[in-house]
Amino acid sequence: MTTSTQVPQTGAEVRSLIRAGKYRQPTSGAAPDFVQANVAILPREVAFEFLLFCQRNPKPCPVVEVLEPGEVEAKISAPGSDLRTDVPLYRVYKNGEFVDEPDTLDEWWRDDLVTFLLGCSFSFEHALIRNGIDLPYYGTDRNVPMFTTSVETVPAGPFSGPLVVSQRWIPEGKVVRAVQATSRFPSVHGAPVHVGNGASLGIEDQYKPDFGDPWIPEDPTLVPVYWACGVTPQAVAMASKSELMITHSPGHMFVTDLKDEELAVI
Amino acid sequence: MTTSTQVPQTGAEVRSLIRAGKYRQPTSGAAPDFVQANVAILPREVAFEFLLFCQRNPKPCPVVEVLEPGEVEAKISAPGSDLRTDVPLYRVYKNGEFVDEPDTLDEWWRDDLVTFLLGCSFSFEHALIRNGIDLPYYGTDRNVPMFTTSVETVPAGPFSGPLVVSQRWIPEGKVVRAVQATSRFPSVHGAPVHVGNGASLGIEDQYKPDFGDPWIPEDPTLVPVYWACGVTPQAVAMASKSELMITHSPGHMFVTDLKDEELAVI
Repeated sequence: MTTSTQVPQTGAEVRSLIRAGKYRQPTSGAAPDFVQANVAILPREVAFEFLLFCQRNPKPCPVVEVLEPGEVEAKISAPGSDLRTDVPLYRVYKNGEFVDEPDTLDEWWRDDLVTFLLGCSFSFEHALIRNGIDLPYYGTDRNVPMFTTSVETVPAGPFSGPLVVSQRWIPEGKVVRAVQATSRFPSVHGAPVHVGNGASLGIEDQYKPDFGDPWIPEDPTLVPVYWACGVTPQAVAMASKSELMITHSPGHMFVTDLKDEELAVI
Repeated sequence: MTTSTQVPQTGAEVRSLIRAGKYRQPTSGAAPDFVQANVAILPREVAFEFLLFCQRNPKPCPVVEVLEPGEVEAKISAPGSDLRTDVPLYRVYKNGEFVDEPDTLDEWWRDDLVTFLLGCSFSFEHALIRNGIDLPYYGTDRNVPMFTTSVETVPAGPFSGPLVVSQRWIPEGKVVRAVQATSRFPSVHGAPVHVGNGASLGIEDQYKPDFGDPWIPEDPTLVPVYWACGVTPQAVAMASKSELMITHSPGHMFVTDLKDEELAVI
């Protein structure tokens, strides 16, 4: 594995390094102003129902772009890209079972595959930070705490399952600001789904996440705030045991040419 | 045709009158607080591409709800409804040609049909009126002026064509408020696509609309403001010459149980 020593500054730069085999690490921190996306690739046979699932559950499944069957270039969010080569690391699942973690999709690509690019939390975390809200794991190798809730998503076709949320402890005087700042970005999860008591979401121990690292706040005035998480559609698609499903490997996202601010609705 | 003398006040009331054959008129003014939807019904074969078209063009094609193939109940926006009977008047097109205008879909329903409910401008017009912006055609039998523009929608599969916009003349001191008030409602067309000079959209004569009635403002300080229009997806779907397509008859909308305010994003 060769790794570039300089941090690439644009989406196009990141993708071209990846395509040249010079970038195989997680993309957090790369091209900091650019929107990164979760990747889910499914056969056309279930693409309508998966897009419908996203439409019915926009907070966990905010759509950045969907490619047409067989198409490999994200023409809207990343012209010139190739989804078969421009993600640092992929995961391949057959009937819901993990079978491969390749560098490229040369071995796996088919003309009936539909690529979904879904918003990820990096963009709205920038918005929180710009508003003076500290995220202690940000820029470290720790991850945000994530919880599987007792809240069911709205099913569509074979796709159903619980909502997964991420948790961030926000100073009580900044909760309103955190809601406002993230509401501007519905295509990267948007406003929180819940403020305060995690038990209302069926979370038994707010210090023991199901995924990611625990976040044990030292300041007792911090309030836990929960946002819908991009793990939701991946878990739901995997549970549907689609004959084939390809995703990015965790943290190894697709970097677009869109800038955070372009996603703001207001 | 029997027409109820009293104006029904809820979506459920309107739908039950329609289903009983007692309401065959346009739905403007019926159940005034409830969201009304444009209806487009297409075969499953093209449903993924049409939903993708809506996702790529959210301003002209804001999705309120999409039903699964063969499903006739809008479970999310109108539980208990039946899309085969609960629209006052339908239009049926075969290969893009108008062939029938039935009261119910008993003769036309098929198990592979997918129903799209798309936002209509009634809800955001309420928002303008609540903000003190006068719409002279509102509550009359005149219609908003609509123009086919030179702006192309983002195509998806067989669906492509020009953006159609509606025009409203807004007092110059209220233009900012009009943008703010409608931005809150992206699922009913949302913010304007353009403020001012219609020539920028390829509109040759701003007093000669392609559809609806002209609006010739008497006050020279009024500014023309343009919103994406629900005629866009209907025109695009018709131009695709889908083997079968069913819509509501103009003005004869599907009335949901959602209230305008439930659609607000902020």
